[in-house]
Amino acid sequence: MPLSKNAIKTLKALHRKKFRQKYNKFMAEGDKIVRELLTQRYYLVEAVYATASWLQQHSTHLSAANISSIEVNEQELRLISQLSTPNQVLAVVEIPPIPDDINWREDWTLYLDGLQDPGNVGTILRIADWFGIPRVVAGPGTVELYNSKVLQASMGAFLRVEWIESSLDSICAQAPELPCWIADMGGDDVFSLSVPRNGILVVGNEGQGISMSVRDLATQVVSITAPAGSGAESLNVGVATGILCAALRRKS
Amino acid sequence: MPLSKNAIKTLKALHRKKFRQKYNKFMAEGDKIVRELLTQRYYLVEAVYATASWLQQHSTHLSAANISSIEVNEQELRLISQLSTPNQVLAVVEIPPIPDDINWREDWTLYLDGLQDPGNVGTILRIADWFGIPRVVAGPGTVELYNSKVLQASMGAFLRVEWIESSLDSICAQAPELPCWIADMGGDDVFSLSVPRNGILVVGNEGQGISMSVRDLATQVVSITAPAGSGAESLNVGVATGILCAALRRKS
Repeated sequence: MPLSKNAIKTLKALHRKKFRQKYNKFMAEGDKIVRELLTQRYYLVEAVYATASWLQQHSTHLSAANISSIEVNEQELRLISQLSTPNQVLAVVEIPPIPDDINWREDWTLYLDGLQDPGNVGTILRIADWFGIPRVVAGPGTVELYNSKVLQASMGAFLRVEWIESSLDSICAQAPELPCWIADMGGDDVFSLSVPRNGILVVGNEGQGISMSVRDLATQVVSITAPAGSGAESLNVGVATGILCAALRRKS
Repeated sequence: MPLSKNAIKTLKALHRKKFRQKYNKFMAEGDKIVRELLTQRYYLVEAVYATASWLQQHSTHLSAANISSIEVNEQELRLISQLSTPNQVLAVVEIPPIPDDINWREDWTLYLDGLQDPGNVGTILRIADWFGIPRVVAGPGTVELYNSKVLQASMGAFLRVEWIESSLDSICAQAPELPCWIADMGGDDVFSLSVPRNGILVVGNEGQGISMSVRDLATQVVSITAPAGSGAESLNVGVATGILCAALRRKS
């Protein structure tokens, strides 16, 4: 049975932040991400839209998980997908409630201060996943959590890393003794510092850097030292975050 | 005087690799990159196409450098630009001859083994620039040097880092004693190694990793260690290169 015009309209609405927030749902796309969604418990999958062959291949999984599956043809998939090249399957997923029992004192938290490029944010989720950093916080002004480009660039990392909206004020109020490291020019070389067992690492907006209100909460400014004679003005924020996380996790 | 149809056609041809190679020229765009082009000596700028206000602002520079400057309006700029949002000015630049006196023994060389994403390659040029790594080599299969997306993503770093095409075979033949580190899974933690004063650091294709012929030339396999329990399968190659370069340059 072909998708109704109404169904298509509702699905396409999820391409927009406004309607994701209104319906409290988002769209996750692609074989790998959807397969991973089906084997986890944190996100509630409402429905899977997929080609006949994909549905057939995953029928056991789908019926075991009791998930409504809707067959679509390539043309319908192109209509409802957010991707320029849709990939066999997409899932409609409930946006989980904001957890109220986050243990900020467990290990490190990455805090994104107004990051606007979804590719950078997805890359940072992937970095957190690689280095086993348990959570990433989108501070005010950061791109919305369930933006499709964030999810794609994260390569599924949003399923394995806690991905939450909060403010540094609120975190520091809940765990005031936590070290708060902010990444900025003119700080101490991150490789020269001994690393506490827990803390918050703050990275700033692509153009503006760290905001003033966040800067006031810092207990330590950390930098990636450029050798004398370096010509570049800055590193991409994804690359910088990767280097900082490597410094937090290094053994030697 | 408006640009002739023929002039527009010739300029637009430079959007394509085939014609860049035929005419031995490329196009560099944007205020910052063009201003930097005008103050360096390695690249020969043939002509600058810019809005009246840009030309007026930079007239002293342009006449001192004896560069032909052509006034274009916004509409013409949109026609000849490679960018979706053109930025006041673009330059037509000669592709320099391949230097035959590269000192491979000076410091480190970054070697890109078949990197295909121009954004990644530009990001890596920016990383080399930041860490003062003097040259980046595009190995066979790597995106073409003067692809506009490489130049844009490099944020001008291609002007400050030697950016050359060669093969690892050829480099190793010229400097056979150089340490050749390849980045791959299952190697030694890069932060656990002592860093020689010079060498070649090889990073591989986004999907395929390092090619077999390149692997045979390695003297050391290096890895970025993920803690136990890490979920990600890999890091983005730009992020990984940033971490590896930070390890090469760290003081502690």
